[in-house]
Amino acid sequence: MMVLRFAPASPFVRKVRIAAALLGLDKDIELRPTDPAKGEADFWRENPLGKIPVLIDEHGTQYFDSRVILEYLDHRAGGGKILPRDPAARFAALRLQALADGVGDACLLQVYEGRYRPPEKHVQAWVDMQAGKVARGLAALEAAPPKITTTPDVGQIALACALGYRDLRFNGDWRAKHPKLVAWLDKFSAQVPSFVETKMAA
Amino acid sequence: MMVLRFAPASPFVRKVRIAAALLGLDKDIELRPTDPAKGEADFWRENPLGKIPVLIDEHGTQYFDSRVILEYLDHRAGGGKILPRDPAARFAALRLQALADGVGDACLLQVYEGRYRPPEKHVQAWVDMQAGKVARGLAALEAAPPKITTTPDVGQIALACALGYRDLRFNGDWRAKHPKLVAWLDKFSAQVPSFVETKMAA
Repeated sequence: MMVLRFAPASPFVRKVRIAAALLGLDKDIELRPTDPAKGEADFWRENPLGKIPVLIDEHGTQYFDSRVILEYLDHRAGGGKILPRDPAARFAALRLQALADGVGDACLLQVYEGRYRPPEKHVQAWVDMQAGKVARGLAALEAAPPKITTTPDVGQIALACALGYRDLRFNGDWRAKHPKLVAWLDKFSAQVPSFVETKMAA
Repeated sequence: MMVLRFAPASPFVRKVRIAAALLGLDKDIELRPTDPAKGEADFWRENPLGKIPVLIDEHGTQYFDSRVILEYLDHRAGGGKILPRDPAARFAALRLQALADGVGDACLLQVYEGRYRPPEKHVQAWVDMQAGKVARGLAALEAAPPKITTTPDVGQIALACALGYRDLRFNGDWRAKHPKLVAWLDKFSAQVPSFVETKMAA
């Protein structure tokens, strides 16, 4: 059995859960609820950065962050499934993952402004800078939504999770201006049951 | 000719420059100075996240972030050089890269507290949280510094750049308590001329 350090609202944990399900590995993974803010010694030993997700295999070897875990799971499943081997497809998937994860990171920094700072310490220019990354990222994706492949790749998984996080924490504020991405996410949801199963209520 | 969106103080750009030199690709890359804070339209089109590094190949295809660029450069150089093909070595390199990049990200967030917020908006608990990630990461690495392979892998490159950034922005504050990592970085510097050539004065 593998172990996944897990919290239900993390978009990066969600990537791992969806990848595992797509690869047929979800039954081999025990979910271990972890609050990164608590700083348990075991967790910090597994990942000194104190971030989730962390995957631990049967030999006690740790894998993080989500990108490394997704590549590892793809490798365990034989390779070339959610991470294409063909160079053009592979780098397109990796670029999309980097963009979607970057949108997710910017969303997280917007959330952290409220979580880690009292209102009088907020800095609007910082929040606006993060919002700009999200807006430009989504505008670029709306202009040319990626194809959804039979087995979605790491980029498509990351995009779905970034949009899902925007739904969770920002009340779907992206939807009105991005009709193509709304249709994209509807199609992804219909094709990938684990995306629906890992949905968090706000 | 490839183009690299570049700024001299970025630890993530430095990874790319060192990787390119190790792979013999540095002569094929034109450095294009870019200030991410300026938000040029061309730059934002290449990477909507507004982050450096971005690499653009001869066909106008963009690659980001630094991890994706390193994998792409390794691929261009034939593969299996800075990103091992053997699974155990590959995932160890990817894990080390994720840890070192995570330390670098936490250092950046410490720097950004000063760059993007006036002193009265600083939140010590946030800065301390980032400092904790750096301290735990470096403690774990001091306990077991990675081997330096004949061609350093992406993890070793990332670690050298994270330590170099700590030198640049935090006046080498990590050195006193991490003698093994100091020796490690000395050895890396002696072996990798491009690490010395890309050093920034503080």
